[in-house]
Amino acid sequence: MVMPLALLEKSLDKRISLLLKDSRVLEGKLTGFDDYMNMVLEDTEETTVEQNRRLGTVVLRGNNVVSISTL
Amino acid sequence: MVMPLALLEKSLDKRISLLLKDSRVLEGKLTGFDDYMNMVLEDTEETTVEQNRRLGTVVLRGNNVVSISTL
Amino acid sequence: MVMPLALLEKSLDKRISLLLKDSRVLEGKLTGFDDYMNMVLEDTEETTVEQNRRLGTVVLRGNNVVSISTL
Amino acid sequence: MVMPLALLEKSLDKRISLLLKDSRVLEGKLTGFDDYMNMVLEDTEETTVEQNRRLGTVVLRGNNVVSISTL
Amino acid sequence: MVMPLALLEKSLDKRISLLLKDSRVLEGKLTGFDDYMNMVLEDTEETTVEQNRRLGTVVLRGNNVVSISTL
Amino acid sequence: MVMPLALLEKSLDKRISLLLKDSRVLEGKLTGFDDYMNMVLEDTEETTVEQNRRLGTVVLRGNNVVSISTL
Amino acid sequence: MVMPLALLEKSLDKRISLLLKDSRVLEGKLTGFDDYMNMVLEDTEETTVEQNRRLGTVVLRGNNVVSISTL
Repeated sequence: MVMPLALLEKSLDKRISLLLKDSRVLEGKLTGFDDYMNMVLEDTEETTVEQNRRLGTVVLRGNNVVSISTL
Repeated sequence: MVMPLALLEKSLDKRISLLLKDSRVLEGKLTGFDDYMNMVLEDTEETTVEQNRRLGTVVLRGNNVVSISTL
Repeated sequence: MVMPLALLEKSLDKRISLLLKDSRVLEGKLTGFDDYMNMVLEDTEETTVEQNRRLGTVVLRGNNVVSISTL
Repeated sequence: MVMPLALLEKSLDKRISLLLKDSRVLEGKLTGFDDYMNMVLEDTEETTVEQNRRLGTVVLRGNNVVSISTL
Repeated sequence: MVMPLALLEKSLDKRISLLLKDSRVLEGKLTGFDDYMNMVLEDTEETTVEQNRRLGTVVLRGNNVVSISTL
Repeated sequence: MVMPLALLEKSLDKRISLLLKDSRVLEGKLTGFDDYMNMVLEDTEETTVEQNRRLGTVVLRGNNVVSISTL
Repeated sequence: MVMPLALLEKSLDKRISLLLKDSRVLEGKLTGFDDYMNMVLEDTEETTVEQNRRLGTVVLRGNNVVSISTL
């Protein structure tokens, strides 16, 4: 059994892709997280239907996250 | 009586189908979950009205899940 | 006085009908539930305006449930 | 001072009217409730703009309830 | 400093006006409340854009309330 | 470091502007608040795109508040 | 590992950019925050599609925040 937070732990310093509730997708290197799945991403890029944007270092509130994929 | 989390436990390493609040459907092998029904899926495929997509390994936040079907 | 969870207990192994927040209706045999009204249904059928579908065994997150009717 | 749950207690075995968040109105005899305002209604009738429907005995999740009127 | 619940306490047996999340406005005599701002109103009148309605005694779930004005 | 609630404390008896989730803006003198950011405003004025309205003394549920500006 | 709140701590007295759930973007100097990610910003500027506005000192409720970027 792989606990969800254990998979995040294994993904530290790796690039992940996040789907947010507002359907934005963020890609970045996961450098931290807490029990609420708040996350810290570095070298983050945001993808929406209209545009791509570089966001640098980002803190994400876990309650906006739908799913997290390893890349 | 079958507790909901006990049914998830019995579904470990089996393929399940998840309906999310944004009406996406994810199918994958359940490899982990926690008390909030956060889940880890492997070999995940996403189905929307427009497209199918391979997502690989995914962590899902439980509060976006509507229902979970065993396959 | 009939506590809501006591009525669910009395409905075990009987068919119930669930109205979900996304206005889908699920009908199935209630085989389990927990304090959050997460539920396990067997031989589940989903009814929407467009279609009926057989879903088999389903785990339902309680926070998507509006009301539960005994059949 | 009348505590909200005390008013529900006094309404036991009386017919009440519930307004739900999805703007459905349910009328039925209140036979039980808990601290979360989950409720049990008997001889329930649902009223929407389009139709009236008999629902029999219903368990209602409190977080879908907007207001409760005594009849 | 006036704590919000202390102002409700001072408003007991006075008429107040409630704005709900669904933009309905309720006016009635506040006869009770609890820590979650669930409230009991008597001689309640509901005002929407389309109509006014007498509701009598009403229990209101606090999480549907936006603001409370004293009259 | 200025804790958010400490800034509210410093704003007591001063006029503040509140942005609510339903995009109404309320301006009034802050006379109280609690740990949930429920607030008491006096001499409150509401501004929407269509109109301005005097509301007098208002209790606001903190979970409807987006941001609070000092004036 | 960088905990999300630790990154906020490191961003104290620096300018950050906040994306809110209603898609407004706020830029300001972070002068405080608490465990719920409620924040205090100074010299805040709001950017929407239609306009830019100076807001001065602002308290932000954490549950409206989607993401926080360092500038």
